Amino acid sequence: MNEVFVLAQGGGPTAVINATVAGAALEARRRYPGAKVLGARHGVRGVRKGDFIDLSALSDGDLHLLAATPNAALGSTRDKPDEKYCADILESLKRVSATAFIYIGGNDTAGTQQILDTAAGGKIACIHAPKTIDNDLVENDHTPGYISAAWFVASAFRSIDLDFRAMTGIYVAVVMGRHAGFLSAAGAAWRRDESDGPHILCLPERPFSTKQFLEDVGRVHARYGRCIVAMSEGVAGADGKSVVESLLGDRVERDAHGNVRLGGGDLGLAVQSAINEAFPKVRSRVDTFGYLPRAFGTMIGEVDRQEAFDAGTFAVATASDGSASISLTFKGGETILRRLPLSYVAGKTRLMPKEFVAPSGTELSDAGMAYLSRLVPKAPEIMRPLI
Amino acid sequence: MNEVFVLAQGGGPTAVINATVAGAALEARRRYPGAKVLGARHGVRGVRKGDFIDLSALSDGDLHLLAATPNAALGSTRDKPDEKYCADILESLKRVSATAFIYIGGNDTAGTQQILDTAAGGKIACIHAPKTIDNDLVENDHTPGYISAAWFVASAFRSIDLDFRAMTGIYVAVVMGRHAGFLSAAGAAWRRDESDGPHILCLPERPFSTKQFLEDVGRVHARYGRCIVAMSEGVAGADGKSVVESLLGDRVERDAHGNVRLGGGDLGLAVQSAINEAFPKVRSRVDTFGYLPRAFGTMIGEVDRQEAFDAGTFAVATASDGSASISLTFKGGETILRRLPLSYVAGKTRLMPKEFVAPSGTELSDAGMAYLSRLVPKAPEIMRPLI
Repeated sequence: MNEVFVLAQGGGPTAVINATVAGAALEARRRYPGAKVLGARHGVRGVRKGDFIDLSALSDGDLHLLAATPNAALGSTRDKPDEKYCADILESLKRVSATAFIYIGGNDTAGTQQILDTAAGGKIACIHAPKTIDNDLVENDHTPGYISAAWFVASAFRSIDLDFRAMTGIYVAVVMGRHAGFLSAAGAAWRRDESDGPHILCLPERPFSTKQFLEDVGRVHARYGRCIVAMSEGVAGADGKSVVESLLGDRVERDAHGNVRLGGGDLGLAVQSAINEAFPKVRSRVDTFGYLPRAFGTMIGEVDRQEAFDAGTFAVATASDGSASISLTFKGGETILRRLPLSYVAGKTRLMPKEFVAPSGTELSDAGMAYLSRLVPKAPEIMRPLI
Repeated sequence: MNEVFVLAQGGGPTAVINATVAGAALEARRRYPGAKVLGARHGVRGVRKGDFIDLSALSDGDLHLLAATPNAALGSTRDKPDEKYCADILESLKRVSATAFIYIGGNDTAGTQQILDTAAGGKIACIHAPKTIDNDLVENDHTPGYISAAWFVASAFRSIDLDFRAMTGIYVAVVMGRHAGFLSAAGAAWRRDESDGPHILCLPERPFSTKQFLEDVGRVHARYGRCIVAMSEGVAGADGKSVVESLLGDRVERDAHGNVRLGGGDLGLAVQSAINEAFPKVRSRVDTFGYLPRAFGTMIGEVDRQEAFDAGTFAVATASDGSASISLTFKGGETILRRLPLSYVAGKTRLMPKEFVAPSGTELSDAGMAYLSRLVPKAPEIMRPLI
């Protein structure tokens, strides 16, 4: 029997999502000579339409080049298939005699695979391969994509901190992260001591109060002559409402799923106003990092790429065992891959563990710093502060 | 007679401004054993106050580490000294028996040196060492700091273009550059053909019209399914008014010099509104790169660092010839350093040469691409587009 693997990429791109595709395609070629590997254009949208690229036609060299290429080379989608959509997908998969469907993405992707698995009745292995810069998949120590994005954010905050040593003031960067603060927290990865920024983390896991925030900023600024803040775009008040929503009221924008549109600059502008009002004489700046951290092609973590590649290899190597979610577990000092039931991961969100955050709620604990230090590539050595 | 060199850093930091300090300090040590090298804290502000760091006390190893450290380690300032301020500076320089004052910065810095040179009457060599990510110094082929910032911007647009291949839509990034479009133009450095973004450059050298802009965006989007734009923060209408100013009217913010405050997110938000209105059904995103490109510590161009270092060495090596502006000239296939009268550079702004821009005004000509290709580090190899 000829194996037919269908691969698709879902959700926001990362620096290493193509490595998972390449790992899977190369393993299929090695393990099942003559196997067909089809890549769907734009995720499940392409699967439904039968819009496939024949990855079997690519040379080994091309596939290794693909593994080194950032962003989603097959194209991606934000579609969240319902049961009808899933039935269409299944039809299309059957039409190409798929033996396995490997869908690379976050917890929504695992959810889609769960629906498909039930509908397929064991005839097609529905495998979720993990990917998200948000690092918010349960049952995973960390997820492919996070390390590279975290590296960018750590580097950005190191640079910004030096910038504000040179010319003092207040700086806030809004960083991606709707529910989980892992990516903002990564800004702290290269702190050497408490004088280094970011001095304040505003994480979605902790209720945000503008009053408390401005007090904290004032205290840090008085102490160091500067205050650097990493703020997750999803910060929310004690009422659970996102700050953007509270600030904009009815004018808030929503996506097709009814989720409040975050990170588009609105939060940044609102924070800038609040800071201008509270500290009118202080130089201040609010930047929104936007899309830059998620797949910055010049900063692809070597470990990140290898783990993403291995996840693809593992998905194909174990496809004959049926549907599963592939997870990255940290055990015995190393990251290992495991197969878990899709239901363990689907639709669930992993938040920053409480023990990663210091009692203040705005800095990391030693455990949080140790976690980052294990994952994020090391900082370049720089001169100690002269001023 | 003992040589005493005073060094200062002015204006916005760059990834390599410390290399100029290190080059100067090491050359002073080599050429004039026993020479004193003083670094002023926060530019002319520190000179005036007599607030100095004794750089002579640093080891060679420390100075080489300083050369590899991004941002202005001595601290910087936006102060533009008038004659009175300059008289105070001169007093302070005399108090420490300075034989040369090397001030690293842009055209304002050259202007300050011009005032000081006149007042000093030849007793102190007033030397301007070039530095600006804007690349807007006349008589320079390019300026230290530009290459590294351009590298970041080129890499960012490569990543963004791949991002919007994966999920289609319209993207605009606002990039630093008040009068000169060199940094936005750098976004195009890694384009392979006209399908690669950025498809549209909005340069301050060309009058901006919102109507024309939206037409251009619509045309590109219809053709490629996406449109990527690099917009200089200083874009201005045919009336010469910056777009931010036209949009905000009286609400526009100004700095201490009366310059309109740019790049703080306002322009981005205004552009986002215009795009939302013109293309209500298209995914769109406007990011403001903000401070990230100017001194991103993980992307320091090796050539950039060496040239900045050499500028410092050259400043000290030729200080006995008196006051000058150091310039980087491209001649016979290589970059060479020259000494020019301060008046050649002071207060003047170099714009993008007309021949660097294609007739459309929104893309680079072959000459513009060749210029970038000579300066910006090469792009990592990536897979050809699959979709």
